[in-house]
Amino acid sequence: MKLHIHQTQQTIAEFSQIFSYLKQAYEKSASHSLHLFPELFLTGYPLQDLCLQDSFVQKYLDLLQEINTWSKNLSDKQDTCFLLGGLKYDNYDSRQQNYQIRNVVYKLIPGKELEAVYTKHLLPNYDIFDERKYYWTGKEPFSLEWCDRHIGVLICEDMWPSTFYDHDPSQMLFEHYQNNKVQPDLIVNLSASPFALGKQENRVQRGMELSHQFGCPFAYSNRVGAEDEIIFDGSSFIVDAKNKKMAQLKSFVADELIIDIEKSNQSQDSDYQSNPEHVWQSLFTPKLDLSKKPAQLISLSDEQIETSLEAIQFSLQEYATKNGFKKFLIALSGGMDSALALTIARMSLKDDQSLEAIYMPSQYSASLSYDLSFELCQNLGVKLTTLPIKFMHSTARNMFSQYFKTPLEGVADENIQSRLRGTLLYARSNQTGSMVINTSNKSEIAVGYSTQYGDSVGALSILGDLFKSEIYQIAEFINKKYNKVIPEGIITRPASAELREDQQDSQTLPPYDVLDAILEAILSYQYSKSEILDLGFNQEDVEKVFHLYRISEFKRYQFCPIVKLKMKSFGFGYRLPISKNNYIYT
Amino acid sequence: MKLHIHQTQQTIAEFSQIFSYLKQAYEKSASHSLHLFPELFLTGYPLQDLCLQDSFVQKYLDLLQEINTWSKNLSDKQDTCFLLGGLKYDNYDSRQQNYQIRNVVYKLIPGKELEAVYTKHLLPNYDIFDERKYYWTGKEPFSLEWCDRHIGVLICEDMWPSTFYDHDPSQMLFEHYQNNKVQPDLIVNLSASPFALGKQENRVQRGMELSHQFGCPFAYSNRVGAEDEIIFDGSSFIVDAKNKKMAQLKSFVADELIIDIEKSNQSQDSDYQSNPEHVWQSLFTPKLDLSKKPAQLISLSDEQIETSLEAIQFSLQEYATKNGFKKFLIALSGGMDSALALTIARMSLKDDQSLEAIYMPSQYSASLSYDLSFELCQNLGVKLTTLPIKFMHSTARNMFSQYFKTPLEGVADENIQSRLRGTLLYARSNQTGSMVINTSNKSEIAVGYSTQYGDSVGALSILGDLFKSEIYQIAEFINKKYNKVIPEGIITRPASAELREDQQDSQTLPPYDVLDAILEAILSYQYSKSEILDLGFNQEDVEKVFHLYRISEFKRYQFCPIVKLKMKSFGFGYRLPISKNNYIYT
Repeated sequence: MKLHIHQTQQTIAEFSQIFSYLKQAYEKSASHSLHLFPELFLTGYPLQDLCLQDSFVQKYLDLLQEINTWSKNLSDKQDTCFLLGGLKYDNYDSRQQNYQIRNVVYKLIPGKELEAVYTKHLLPNYDIFDERKYYWTGKEPFSLEWCDRHIGVLICEDMWPSTFYDHDPSQMLFEHYQNNKVQPDLIVNLSASPFALGKQENRVQRGMELSHQFGCPFAYSNRVGAEDEIIFDGSSFIVDAKNKKMAQLKSFVADELIIDIEKSNQSQDSDYQSNPEHVWQSLFTPKLDLSKKPAQLISLSDEQIETSLEAIQFSLQEYATKNGFKKFLIALSGGMDSALALTIARMSLKDDQSLEAIYMPSQYSASLSYDLSFELCQNLGVKLTTLPIKFMHSTARNMFSQYFKTPLEGVADENIQSRLRGTLLYARSNQTGSMVINTSNKSEIAVGYSTQYGDSVGALSILGDLFKSEIYQIAEFINKKYNKVIPEGIITRPASAELREDQQDSQTLPPYDVLDAILEAILSYQYSKSEILDLGFNQEDVEKVFHLYRISEFKRYQFCPIVKLKMKSFGFGYRLPISKNNYIYT
Repeated sequence: MKLHIHQTQQTIAEFSQIFSYLKQAYEKSASHSLHLFPELFLTGYPLQDLCLQDSFVQKYLDLLQEINTWSKNLSDKQDTCFLLGGLKYDNYDSRQQNYQIRNVVYKLIPGKELEAVYTKHLLPNYDIFDERKYYWTGKEPFSLEWCDRHIGVLICEDMWPSTFYDHDPSQMLFEHYQNNKVQPDLIVNLSASPFALGKQENRVQRGMELSHQFGCPFAYSNRVGAEDEIIFDGSSFIVDAKNKKMAQLKSFVADELIIDIEKSNQSQDSDYQSNPEHVWQSLFTPKLDLSKKPAQLISLSDEQIETSLEAIQFSLQEYATKNGFKKFLIALSGGMDSALALTIARMSLKDDQSLEAIYMPSQYSASLSYDLSFELCQNLGVKLTTLPIKFMHSTARNMFSQYFKTPLEGVADENIQSRLRGTLLYARSNQTGSMVINTSNKSEIAVGYSTQYGDSVGALSILGDLFKSEIYQIAEFINKKYNKVIPEGIITRPASAELREDQQDSQTLPPYDVLDAILEAILSYQYSKSEILDLGFNQEDVEKVFHLYRISEFKRYQFCPIVKLKMKSFGFGYRLPISKNNYIYT
């Protein structure tokens, strides 16, 4: 038999394209082919409340009906089989709330009715996942008996046994084969698995384990797409029972693979012990080197930097395409973050797209900031417009002195500069219909070192899952690869918000290598103060970071979507109350 | 025996106050008393990811330890019993992710160890609820056998059988008594039940059903507090087996009640059939009068308006107190929403608090807008400052013509006015440390009829769960009750954003009574276009509303917390992707 892995990329609920793809796959199908699609291929993922809206459900049920009619009218071709991820609605009635939704695999055999054959068992409900909010769980293992082959079917999380769950679907499937004295020929997993740096390695390792345990190849079909903050990277693969990777599909792009699968001549390994390091939890291992005192954030490898750059560009393009933007707009400050954001946006730019930069100096902006912004835009071939805010700033100052009899000073005078920039930036965005790219980094977001409605504005944050020290690392990587496209002065000058005379980040924050390591301990390890002190940091730094972290929840609440590159990120999967007793952080 | 219901109000994780309250309750306890506390009294609710942070967990485990030590050292007093809602951590280890958390009832008997006796069965995971993200489910019914009484214990959702769940804990408890041939004397429910208009009636009805079925009183202890957008109203109660309400505690304030409970002289009713209208789903019944063509939004009753006003004031005060604000700031436009927001904020004001209004006219602001704002502030005794934006606006216009060679026009010129106001408002907020109250209503938020980072700014939206027609209703109610404190001109003038010459809302939106009814159909019924057309609306209005609704998801994503007054609201419980194929709404 041939296995045809379809690593598909469609916008959520883009039903006509989904159906077209399916029809083309049928037309082009080689004989004796099993077509493997991703989880929820028929709908897209994650749907969130969309799967409860009648607008969606009716059109989706129509799609299922059309596919069914189409399939039944095809000539009977038992040697072709499609495994399609989709939703199944039981007892759907828009006026009642007691229908049930299941995340299933549909079997489609030309000439026959579409049939839901397997329901996902493990519904992830941590971090960004809300599946138990919407779906009912499956309880039964399923083996596809087709053309003399035995094919075990799993959906995404089902391959990851974990203490999060009360049972292990891969083990159930294994026992199903043991009990029936059947040797499986292939295990398939239909996935919609979000990207995170380092995750692919774990997927393959776990795939090899399953392949070894079942004594047959393991095939993993993942979707491609970026949905607001979440990226699906594809990177589908197949491994064989000898624990070799037979093939891997591309990342961040639709792809397909046709491969011959022989009948298994091996047997299940009932004594197989999985490596505890390959379990799901291992994905969440924080990136701290604890052998150092104080602990240090583990640097990104060059490969991880390359992957991050691909992921960010892909995500930016997906957001723009799906929301109808062909123009991008970035506010440059002369600092590192906005320079990197502009560089990456420029790298991603397609022929029919444009990118524009604005530099908005205040009285506190060094002339160097302009020079460096200008040089960067020259290097990148991006149009730069200078829009000074000092007149509007001084008008506002005068108004406050006149109408409130109180001069604008301190943080009020600092923040108004940032908000005036946000205002002008969005006026330009409205004028040209361009998408504003946010330039905040993860360190800033964590300690609230930004102005709400000021430099924190934007449609999408492309650097918001990267610590400041990683921003520098990536900039240096780009400069090595692309002939110093980013002016060295941007990388070497001390970080500053330039909102007051001689301001520097280091006046408010610990050095970024210290800050970032403490933040990783707080965010990924969920560590408390005493545990972080044990890692070798000094008390003053730890107190300062916790203080800033706890008072900035309200800013994160209103932040834009952040391109997710790691297992633990701010955004949809980060949920903390604003109002609480914050002494617990002391 | 005496039942002592404690309707408590504590900030999330305010452990020292929680312990103090408990100690005082013990000191004041009458003999032979059962003390009934709310769900998660010991921690507060909802904790979201806080319950995974070691900072929280360590301090909470310390609290449990302290309570345990305190309890063991008290003189043995078997005739006093406390039922306390709390969390139980099994196998907690901050470095491992495989611990388990349960939402439990602790039994505390002076002289003995604290003991977790019951785990919540039904973990709500819809709308604002994420409980299956954090907690493990209970499977066993529990009856407290104490002082010759049989007391059935449930936690919150456990009293609401529903097709959402695979079992019915109240029925299990009932069968437990049947099987053991025991007649219960009291059923208690420890709750942390969010407020929604009309919900209390359903709670009491369901309580009466349970009381009738079990043949004994049913007592319901609910917490009080507002947590960002979610309000816990208290309104605890007890009903007896004759289906009479014996007592109800106050709403939106801590309260307590001591009541004698006799041994039950009735018996369980094994034939009892619950009224299907009292099930959980009935709470979600949308507020449309379908007998009218087109369908109409059902008006708020005077009682609902009173309750809404109480709820909003309570929520505003809770947010301010918990986040350290004593000053409030509102931007007045001369329109209805900001006038009502100011009036309600004024009604809520305490002696040590202050409230300030700013009026920021542009060249398009009618002089009437100032006059009405002035009159309103006179009536309310609120200081009003005028801060014209026209100088800044014209500076911005000139800059755009000069630097971009393109004049600011259309939506760009409209939105910049709104954003300049946001900027000045927040400059004042930064200057005085005041909390900005957002003035958007639910209709606006639904159709995106506001400027992101402009009039949509704020720390808390107090009107964001009220449709525009409800805003008018409430204003008229206030005027009737408080001698026309809101100038009639504000209520009667046509709604306008005043961002261009002669602008009126009706140029962009259908009349508000039509808009609001369509929105209720979309948001609460989740209706599709064809279903809404069947309700008698005209096609043009329906198309327009769906169009505006579908293109404004990105604004809602970055919106501030919205005080939740209804079962279906925007905010934490409303989760939709920004990027999707929006043709499904056509």
